[in-house]
Amino acid sequence: MTAHPLHVPPGPVDLDAIATDATPGYGGSKSDGKAALEGLGPELADLQERLFAEGRATGSRRRVLLVLQGMDTSGKGGTLRHTVGLVDPQGVRISSFKAPTADELAHDFLWRIRRAVPAPGYLGVFDRSHYEDVLIARVNELAAPEEIERRYDAINEFERELVEDGTVVLKCLLHISKDEQRERLLARLDNPEKYWKYEPGDIDARARWDDYRAAYELALERTNTAHAPWHVVPSDRKWFRNLAVGTLLLDALRGLDLGWPAADFDVDAERARLLASEAST
Amino acid sequence: MTAHPLHVPPGPVDLDAIATDATPGYGGSKSDGKAALEGLGPELADLQERLFAEGRATGSRRRVLLVLQGMDTSGKGGTLRHTVGLVDPQGVRISSFKAPTADELAHDFLWRIRRAVPAPGYLGVFDRSHYEDVLIARVNELAAPEEIERRYDAINEFERELVEDGTVVLKCLLHISKDEQRERLLARLDNPEKYWKYEPGDIDARARWDDYRAAYELALERTNTAHAPWHVVPSDRKWFRNLAVGTLLLDALRGLDLGWPAADFDVDAERARLLASEAST
Repeated sequence: MTAHPLHVPPGPVDLDAIATDATPGYGGSKSDGKAALEGLGPELADLQERLFAEGRATGSRRRVLLVLQGMDTSGKGGTLRHTVGLVDPQGVRISSFKAPTADELAHDFLWRIRRAVPAPGYLGVFDRSHYEDVLIARVNELAAPEEIERRYDAINEFERELVEDGTVVLKCLLHISKDEQRERLLARLDNPEKYWKYEPGDIDARARWDDYRAAYELALERTNTAHAPWHVVPSDRKWFRNLAVGTLLLDALRGLDLGWPAADFDVDAERARLLASEAST
Repeated sequence: MTAHPLHVPPGPVDLDAIATDATPGYGGSKSDGKAALEGLGPELADLQERLFAEGRATGSRRRVLLVLQGMDTSGKGGTLRHTVGLVDPQGVRISSFKAPTADELAHDFLWRIRRAVPAPGYLGVFDRSHYEDVLIARVNELAAPEEIERRYDAINEFERELVEDGTVVLKCLLHISKDEQRERLLARLDNPEKYWKYEPGDIDARARWDDYRAAYELALERTNTAHAPWHVVPSDRKWFRNLAVGTLLLDALRGLDLGWPAADFDVDAERARLLASEAST
């Protein structure tokens, strides 16, 4: 039994109607869920290596891009560590998007995003993404309303280009409750080893919780395309969140039907060349 | 007991005098060595997280850069997987340097390298590096002799800048024998799951083994500085190679004497703000 994160049906989205503490599709316990995720590791690692091999040895442009979005403390970093951490780091490229720099602001919002798109064969991860440009940008009025309106279409077009260029785009909203966020922020304030994860600005964003929820709902509605659908991952239970995202990744890799690249050289001739080469110096 | 990779003394270097199958400083067996590396994992991960925390929460510019060099099949990728793979991928940035593109060739050889230097708080890895510009560039005469001569000093100056800017530079030559390379190339030709790792050009490079050795010896002699010393890691035994590099990384992180960043906010005041914030929507 594996976890199945919620696919969002087309149309308006009501995030309050999606339980943050549910474990849809999974009937096991927390310890079962942790073991199940570990159990996915070998196949995940094997398929990721095949994808990497394909990117290296063939002209294939296939790759996977995992986009992680969610409110502060929703666990983007933890998800990454527990899922992407199961595969060879060589084949992974992670990009964390913070507030844009002056240089980045001087360009279109997708400029810095395009530069971070993973190369063929890679598993790319966006820890926050171009969605910030229709989330915090909308809540904090960092751009004019018409510009934000334009961005939904620009995002859909950009993601269509990615998909047509061989990218599987996995968009996950890590969905937590406001109560759960309070507990996690308190935990950061109660543990000196976690102070570094806390920023006073987190409380300001928390005060705008309803505005963020509305911005997420609108973003999901406008960008939940057939080529790059959204997944809302109930994330109050960290173990379920990790299992759900790990399962999504595995399903994406399985869907690529990855083999091992054939030799583009004459194996016997190369073996003969090798054996004829001087053995030692 | 831990593995101590060989530090190269100043002066001329004779790589033939350094055994490729030795396990200097380590008296344990292969299975002991594998267990010892696993045993380093928790402390490595803890210290890496502290470094990451420092980079996030303070103005510190400290970071670690692991530079991996070695002949084909010396195991740069495997080393990376088994050592860097022990820490949170969030805090790792890996750059693999291939033959330079036309755009890269239009700039100074360090241009693409500078763009890949890890940000403060990160553990960066160079899988091949600026050293290729004095190795393959020398062997295949890709640059004029005076230009290559200039590069040793440019590298030393560049690495001095990195160190003065807070970077620990760990330079490792993964040292294998020509016989061991033959076995590893044969293994790639004997296993269809490894064909993707094989390139006919590997045999051409192998034919220039002595030239590469001389180029490495010269590079080591010229760039074995006090601020960024070289480590020659005997790498015929993969388990020792991994343990040695893991130990080097751990020693580097221990040397930073990493704590957890102090709060730069009033913890009690923030807790009060949080508890005063609306609990649910």
